[in-house]
Amino acid sequence: MAERFEIVEKALLKMLEDKKYSTLRDILATMNPSDVAAIFGSLRDKQIPLMYRLLPKELAAETFVEMEPEDQELLIQGFSDNELKEVLEELYVDDAADLVEEMPANVVKRILKQADPEMRASINQILRYPEYSAGSIMTTEYVSLRPNMTVEEAILRIRRQGVDKETIYTCYVTSKDRKLIGLVTVKDLLLAEDDEMTIEEIMLTNLIFVNTKTDQEEVARMFSKYNFLALPVVDGEGRMVGIVTFDDAMDVMEEEATEDMELMSGMTPSEKPYLRSSAFELFKNRIPWLMLMMVSATFTGLIMTSFEDALAAQIALSAFIPMLMGTGGNSGSQSSVTVIRGLSLGELEFRDIGIILWKEIRTAVMCGVALAVVCFGKIWLVDRMMMGNTNITLRVDLVVCLALAVTVVVAKIVGCLLPMAAKAVKLDPAVMASPFISTIVDALSLLVYFLFAKMILHV
Amino acid sequence: MAERFEIVEKALLKMLEDKKYSTLRDILATMNPSDVAAIFGSLRDKQIPLMYRLLPKELAAETFVEMEPEDQELLIQGFSDNELKEVLEELYVDDAADLVEEMPANVVKRILKQADPEMRASINQILRYPEYSAGSIMTTEYVSLRPNMTVEEAILRIRRQGVDKETIYTCYVTSKDRKLIGLVTVKDLLLAEDDEMTIEEIMLTNLIFVNTKTDQEEVARMFSKYNFLALPVVDGEGRMVGIVTFDDAMDVMEEEATEDMELMSGMTPSEKPYLRSSAFELFKNRIPWLMLMMVSATFTGLIMTSFEDALAAQIALSAFIPMLMGTGGNSGSQSSVTVIRGLSLGELEFRDIGIILWKEIRTAVMCGVALAVVCFGKIWLVDRMMMGNTNITLRVDLVVCLALAVTVVVAKIVGCLLPMAAKAVKLDPAVMASPFISTIVDALSLLVYFLFAKMILHV
Repeated sequence: MAERFEIVEKALLKMLEDKKYSTLRDILATMNPSDVAAIFGSLRDKQIPLMYRLLPKELAAETFVEMEPEDQELLIQGFSDNELKEVLEELYVDDAADLVEEMPANVVKRILKQADPEMRASINQILRYPEYSAGSIMTTEYVSLRPNMTVEEAILRIRRQGVDKETIYTCYVTSKDRKLIGLVTVKDLLLAEDDEMTIEEIMLTNLIFVNTKTDQEEVARMFSKYNFLALPVVDGEGRMVGIVTFDDAMDVMEEEATEDMELMSGMTPSEKPYLRSSAFELFKNRIPWLMLMMVSATFTGLIMTSFEDALAAQIALSAFIPMLMGTGGNSGSQSSVTVIRGLSLGELEFRDIGIILWKEIRTAVMCGVALAVVCFGKIWLVDRMMMGNTNITLRVDLVVCLALAVTVVVAKIVGCLLPMAAKAVKLDPAVMASPFISTIVDALSLLVYFLFAKMILHV
Repeated sequence: MAERFEIVEKALLKMLEDKKYSTLRDILATMNPSDVAAIFGSLRDKQIPLMYRLLPKELAAETFVEMEPEDQELLIQGFSDNELKEVLEELYVDDAADLVEEMPANVVKRILKQADPEMRASINQILRYPEYSAGSIMTTEYVSLRPNMTVEEAILRIRRQGVDKETIYTCYVTSKDRKLIGLVTVKDLLLAEDDEMTIEEIMLTNLIFVNTKTDQEEVARMFSKYNFLALPVVDGEGRMVGIVTFDDAMDVMEEEATEDMELMSGMTPSEKPYLRSSAFELFKNRIPWLMLMMVSATFTGLIMTSFEDALAAQIALSAFIPMLMGTGGNSGSQSSVTVIRGLSLGELEFRDIGIILWKEIRTAVMCGVALAVVCFGKIWLVDRMMMGNTNITLRVDLVVCLALAVTVVVAKIVGCLLPMAAKAVKLDPAVMASPFISTIVDALSLLVYFLFAKMILHV
């Protein structure tokens, strides 16, 4: 698929260079807006308005929505007021609100000036909701029905109003004071036995809805749980204000997973695609965490320094420090990532903390014992006998393996507790992942190691 | 939302205990299948069939689909042949195929015996496709139309056939030999100006489709790109065989993100929810990677051993080893996770390797220099002056900071190249993340450190 698209893209770019505009127009007209938008991404700035004007009106607007903000800005700067008005008329309100959020102030001014009053009001309404809330990702264009309409009247209304609505397949039934009281799908309407039945008779009333302030992550979770096409959004008084559609929920799911992964590996999340981020932007997202962890490693340094004499007395001990810290870090991040993902998918809740802790401890003991046994054998066979390192005595081997087992258990406990603690104080659990936990586990594993060394080797 | 649900759940369980069946039945009848299924998860085994029989028929089947496999098995074991037949009649084919995949052999036998011949054939067809392919997640129940039908005839057909179809909103136009030639949405049908127009006149022909063998990850990517409700699946000859619906694509997106996170933190991915996995199952998913990394740390051990004399001569050096390895590991995992996520979302391709490498190198140099400068000052101010560690000379400080800068650059290069290399040889790039890269970077950072120590301190 990807390779085929590349060939098409090259052919089209060639046509543009060769000024074969009418052929190009005919081919573009058959293509999907997302694919056309991807081609715009490969054009030089000067070519963008040229190719855009080749698109049929509706496709042009649909393509516009899918473009990168840089390309959108470039196009708007070149638009006449009339052209801008035409594009805005074709946009859904939520896409228009996204556009306003991304553009610089002078462009926003022009957009709001050219939008019709109703759209301007809707855009302003959406932008008032906090970022990442259901209100900020919803659209205000949905089909609303009245309970006393007949099926036939409802279908007629959909036919009249449907063109401008983002989805017509789920219609919402509202009372006179705009309270949400039920929903009807087009499937229900089409399959209704009698066209004269009223909406009230066929509507579903066990409604699942969200509030304008509901976090978008929670909204996405509800989509993946209930498999809806759209989810109604109500305000504090239960009045219907908009809908979130499944495609926006999919975007949120992807964004949130990416954000979690970025946090988990110690980066400030960014919505800008990698290829469009400059090296300096990447640097800015990555350096704070690296600095923090570099400085906090002062503790491990202090622990090492205070056991300098022990290390000097038993020179073989230091060779196993990387292995101990590495295995501890890996064990901890296994637990933390499992818990973080479970929390973010809603499979785990804070109240499960007891179950999780007990499960992690049993798992950790099994992992710790298995690792220690294998490690004991490996050190004796490989390091002592094969490599002939006579500094390694049975006691040294014992210290390493005991420390390993305890480190694994400690790491897994820290790894599952820290994300839960973050959740409890309403922080994003993903912050408590690998880098953060490694730093703590590094220090703990060293302490455990030197403690065993003191007890068994009397250093 | 979650708290409210818990209260409802408790109340319902209480009613079941108190045998208030008719009230319980009335409340359950108003609930959403996903929520009812969640309640079954909290029941004792004996209560499951009891409560299931309280559900109205259609809700019962919809709830059944959403249940955990263990609960489904328990129910089927207790079903009469007739009850099983009834449930199967309500299931969509793709859900029935999922069920057959999850159940033990004796249950599968009963299911296939009670399914009607058409469903049995469809189940067998779906199960023949490789796991994780479009064929294995599709359903064969879709509305197909002929090009010469009128809009009115098409709507009539949907009304007649729609009840059993997973989605009626996108209908596929096929030729006599079952080749896919176009699609029509219910929106197009409802908004068509003239009921006498033919499907051929209004259908879309620039089709996006997948093959039965297309990987499910690619299918999910296409959904998030094109925002479709459903995607048609064709066989090698271009004949339409089924559709994948957006809700299944959402599940795949979630699964694949979870799988990537599990691989990234050194765990064998598992589809079993955490709370239902035993400690031993968690152990089995985690121990292979821990073992592998513990054993491969033999290299870092060997490097440490071979520089034993250097460490003994300059005792201050060993205190900075954890910081060096930690910062190196974190830097590498930042790059690898960025690249892995980009590859998996389709934002990055193998051909971008040059751009990625160059961007990572520039970012790495900035990070390396910034870290080295701050580290130099920190060591001098904190470790030397505040802690009074006179073993730390300016030269030792210099060795640590030079090694740090070089390690960060090396780590970022390794971190971005390894996932790309995995992609090139068709491995899952997510395998090349944090744990794996740490092990390599640990060894490299030690080598760099001791090299600088030899050059500058002449140890």
